[in-house]
Amino acid sequence: MNAHELIESFWRHANARQWDSFATLFTEDVVYEAPQSRERVRGVADYVEFNRTWPGDWRAMVLRIVAEGSRGVSWIDFRVGGQVMPGISFFDLRDGRIAHITDWWPEPYEPPPRATDRIERY
Amino acid sequence: MNAHELIESFWRHANARQWDSFATLFTEDVVYEAPQSRERVRGVADYVEFNRTWPGDWRAMVLRIVAEGSRGVSWIDFRVGGQVMPGISFFDLRDGRIAHITDWWPEPYEPPPRATDRIERY
Repeated sequence: MNAHELIESFWRHANARQWDSFATLFTEDVVYEAPQSRERVRGVADYVEFNRTWPGDWRAMVLRIVAEGSRGVSWIDFRVGGQVMPGISFFDLRDGRIAHITDWWPEPYEPPPRATDRIERY
Repeated sequence: MNAHELIESFWRHANARQWDSFATLFTEDVVYEAPQSRERVRGVADYVEFNRTWPGDWRAMVLRIVAEGSRGVSWIDFRVGGQVMPGISFFDLRDGRIAHITDWWPEPYEPPPRATDRIERY
């Protein structure tokens, strides 16, 4: 599988709770990082457990996958309990498996005053 | 230029404040959106103005560009006034120019209680 297909499989197996198949997508020493909360999970067993125990009847709607060589990115809407959270994940591959994931969960904010009036709100 | 090269040029021209060259990278009807603040800018003239008037002596350090076909993503550290903010931009191309940009500025947050103890902080 190339990086694009691997990321498709990542979300397909996660949504289906197929944790044995999910686990095959990673290197043994995969590292997951969430820079906003400075959380890190190391190793495929712990990383699968981290996903398996994520609470709620969640589902990731994949909005976009972009991949190039051994790198890829997904943009999802993470839906759980009537909430929708955008999530962006950067993937690094090694030997055809996912070796590193950097996860971003951007939250809404009120914009500061802007230097130009050429901006609309939607 | 392919999508990867176009995104490299985007940040190179922006950092150099080369606004005339910067403007050539976009379709006339380019749309910029920041979903977190629900801000939108339409059209190349206004979009260039939006960037040109961004306050401070900022500089974007490009950490990663991933592109595939007519889509691409950049991950930058946006440095201004001693602060560093991660920024993620999704680019959609049309006819070899940037036609749509979706910008994300993820901010730090304290993690909620987790269902597993296999997470470290860093």
